[in-house]
Amino acid sequence: MPCTVELVSVGNELLIGKVSNTNAQWLAERVTSLRGRMIRAVLVRDEISEIVEAIRSTLDRHPDFILTTGGLGPTFDDMTLEGIAHALGRPLELNDKALQMIERRGRRLVAEGRRKEFNLTDPMKKMAFLPREAIPLQNPQGSAPGVLLEFGKTRIIAMPGVPHEMKAIFSEYVEPLIIEMSSNLNYFEKSLVVKGLGESSLSPYVDQVMTEFPEVYIKSHPRRSELLGRFIELHMSALCENPIDARSIVEKASLLVFNLISQGGAIVREANEEDVRR
Amino acid sequence: MPCTVELVSVGNELLIGKVSNTNAQWLAERVTSLRGRMIRAVLVRDEISEIVEAIRSTLDRHPDFILTTGGLGPTFDDMTLEGIAHALGRPLELNDKALQMIERRGRRLVAEGRRKEFNLTDPMKKMAFLPREAIPLQNPQGSAPGVLLEFGKTRIIAMPGVPHEMKAIFSEYVEPLIIEMSSNLNYFEKSLVVKGLGESSLSPYVDQVMTEFPEVYIKSHPRRSELLGRFIELHMSALCENPIDARSIVEKASLLVFNLISQGGAIVREANEEDVRR
Repeated sequence: MPCTVELVSVGNELLIGKVSNTNAQWLAERVTSLRGRMIRAVLVRDEISEIVEAIRSTLDRHPDFILTTGGLGPTFDDMTLEGIAHALGRPLELNDKALQMIERRGRRLVAEGRRKEFNLTDPMKKMAFLPREAIPLQNPQGSAPGVLLEFGKTRIIAMPGVPHEMKAIFSEYVEPLIIEMSSNLNYFEKSLVVKGLGESSLSPYVDQVMTEFPEVYIKSHPRRSELLGRFIELHMSALCENPIDARSIVEKASLLVFNLISQGGAIVREANEEDVRR
Repeated sequence: MPCTVELVSVGNELLIGKVSNTNAQWLAERVTSLRGRMIRAVLVRDEISEIVEAIRSTLDRHPDFILTTGGLGPTFDDMTLEGIAHALGRPLELNDKALQMIERRGRRLVAEGRRKEFNLTDPMKKMAFLPREAIPLQNPQGSAPGVLLEFGKTRIIAMPGVPHEMKAIFSEYVEPLIIEMSSNLNYFEKSLVVKGLGESSLSPYVDQVMTEFPEVYIKSHPRRSELLGRFIELHMSALCENPIDARSIVEKASLLVFNLISQGGAIVREANEEDVRR
């Protein structure tokens, strides 16, 4: 089975709609392509009680990974680590390795002429207070280290909210962990374009195909494009344990869809990138 | 106080990163500009147990509104209403008004030549099964009606996931409800651009201003642009009960920020649209 991933995004700016939560989509897409499964994502404010509640209720579902984004910075409203510490019942402690990472980064910025001077102020130091037993993760793009924690079978990875910092830490530290857990799985997806039948009329065919191919998940999306006008995208995917081949199962299911729908009098073909761009 | 809004987005396509949850940002932005407050957003899969759990835990926090998007359509994996019904302990029942809406829409599509024929098939009918005591909301852009439910002091509004359908229903039915609850509030926000000081160095100034102006919420965002290189955006906002004027308080706080930061040797000015575009 695929490893399970839950996401906790922290940040008021996301809840006032000022900023789009592009991190959530990027992570969902990466996790899926690494053959993990994102099963839930929650977005909470920069408030201790909200973060604690989100982490606790997420831990209750025992996912393999909890990823958090945001709230690792130096300001008073960066409180993700405090929230995680509370939720786990562990104290926050000054972590020497994290402190060294912050100092090295500060000195490098001065050496490169990007900062005039480096002082280890209290706000800087704050970023090195991690929950007990946490492992700091080097942030190659910014000051705030990422954080890895283990709690039972769940690994919690706290990442910054700044997208390029988050992506760097995810790629370096989280990807290998997911890949390791997914090494016995293979994934395949494809989309069909259906023109001339509504979602309601397609529904019985989709049911029939999913009954015959229970490994295949099919979802219909009503769409519109300049070229095609209104049409339905049928997105088909399968995640299989080796040696079962997801691609061959999806292709067989796709052929059945094709036959059923063609007989129903509609037009169906494989989707190209143009069709399914958002 | 502002009315509280929680969002429950339903849809596997969002959790595999295939589609960006643009609805969430749009709703967060609209709710904020209507002087409501979105306090939490959760994204769950098309699974009954997940939807039920999300609705229940959201109800436990007693928000004024729970908005849901997605899962109202005719296919087997559209199960938001079933999930809401379970969570509230109410049965799903064929709703005559909803059925009429679906029939009228089907006949109009035929009359306009957009469909060849209209049959009230089971998948079509499924969209008219609503939790007991629900009020269907006309969907001017699609077949699936929206749904309004009251549960204690909370109003639950289920909307389709297709963005233009969701937006039409929100604007027609939800906006007036939020406006009514927010009529005694006024909101103001502005952003400053700070160049030459890092987030850590700014942090004590921000703390000082927020202590002097507790109504004002200030958040710093590290940014980069071609014109400015790296800079910090300070976003300042206040939501006040009349007759207290949010604008005047934010402007006073902004002046204090300006003075503190200028004395600190950095450059600060009001942000323009170019600076804060994402």
